[in-house]
This record gives sequence, structure tokens and C-alpha cells, in this order.
Amino acid sequence: MSTIFTKIINREIPSCIIAEDENFIAFLDAMPLVKGHTLVVPKKETDLIFDLESEEYKNLWGFTQEIAKKIKNAVPCVRVGVAVVGLEVPHAHIHLIPLNTVEDMNFKNTRLKLTDEEYKEIQKSIINS
Amino acid sequence: MSTIFTKIINREIPSCIIAEDENFIAFLDAMPLVKGHTLVVPKKETDLIFDLESEEYKNLWGFTQEIAKKIKNAVPCVRVGVAVVGLEVPHAHIHLIPLNTVEDMNFKNTRLKLTDEEYKEIQKSIINS
Repeated sequence: MSTIFTKIINREIPSCIIAEDENFIAFLDAMPLVKGHTLVVPKKETDLIFDLESEEYKNLWGFTQEIAKKIKNAVPCVRVGVAVVGLEVPHAHIHLIPLNTVEDMNFKNTRLKLTDEEYKEIQKSIINS
Repeated sequence: MSTIFTKIINREIPSCIIAEDENFIAFLDAMPLVKGHTLVVPKKETDLIFDLESEEYKNLWGFTQEIAKKIKNAVPCVRVGVAVVGLEVPHAHIHLIPLNTVEDMNFKNTRLKLTDEEYKEIQKSIINS
């Protein structure tokens, strides 16, 4: 069965896509810790990020670098944090989280509930940054 | 003034080094969230990881991949998590954290106090894995 991220990649589930190429995709997390919380995902389904083939793995991080710079330009924050946890979805993914304090990266925090308009506004500001 | 990581790189401060090459170093975190918590650091002092030059940045992640595999082999855990926060030390660093639950990556948790013998045992087991 496809993972939820493959369903997003295949447009079976809607999402706010920030960027995409042949191998990777970035979209807003549907359960964000903070505004601008973004996921970067390799299109090939692989559970553990460290199991990716070396070149694809490094290119994934290269793609992530570009997205992180765009988020930093668009979202007010001290810096953009990175987290790879992966205990819930067996499809490698990188969290990019605009941080103002370390508490912004606590995955036990209550997730934000944003309106469609708020999501679209954040998406647009990151894409255009 | 040198960062605490540069002092570790220059052997002005002792640490349990896991691996090192011309550009990068990995050593056990002196204030670990869990056993095996490791930091991977570029030797060149740069505050924001995303400001690293693209090739150096990707090579840093390549070096990190090798260290993460060694940690996974040596330390009992479900998977090795990744975090980049960087709000305290202005020298880019990647946390590799053996995870059993998402709570293992809560930076507000009380840090472990390990004996020198425990550190050396963990260091040896990761190096030899």
C-alpha cells in the first residue's frame, strides 16, 4: 500500500506543494508545529533516510538546502531547524521547522490548526521568496 | 573567539571522537539526550548549516550518513534520528540521536550523566561497529 506521502506525490491527497523535481518534493506539513513547517520527501519510498543510496541521499539534502533558504526568507524565525524522526510514516522525510526557540521543535506540542487561506498564503510566500 | 566545537577539534577540550577527516568530525555529545547521542560538525566555523557551500554541505551529510549507520549498528534503537537546532552554539552541528520514541528527541529533557567509562564504552562500540 502506498504511504501517505506517495499519495501526496500522486495527487491522490491534496497538499500545499512548495517545490518538486524528478526525485524530490517539498510541501507544507498538514499538522504543523509552527507556520512554515515543511516536509521534504524523496519520491522513491524508502523507510530509513540513511538507507538511501549515497548520491540520492546527498541530492535530497541539496534539495532541502534550497527549500530551507526559501523558508528562512519567507517566514519570520531565528533559523530553520531540521528534524528526521520517522517513527510514524515509513517513508523517509525531513522536517524543516522555522525556529524561534528550541521548544518549537518539540514533536509532543499541539499542532496548529490553520485555515486553507493561511496555508495558501504561507505556500505562496515561500514559493515567491 | 573559537567556538566550543573548534576547541574540541583542536584538542583544547577533550571529547570522545567517533570519526574525523579533513573537513568533518563526529564525537559523542557531552550532554546526551540518550546513550549514543553524537554530534557531527564541519571543521570550518559556520553558524547556519544552510549557509555552507553546496558541495561541503552535501559532503557533511554524506559523512553523517556513515556515522549514523555505525550508531545504528552499535546502539539499541528503533532508528537514528537527526536534528539541527543550533540556537546555543554558533557553529553548525548535526545531532544524531538513537530513538526509541519521539520523546527521545525532546531537547528540554534532562540530559544523561554518564561516567567516563560509559562514554568510552559507547565510543568504542560505535567505532568498532
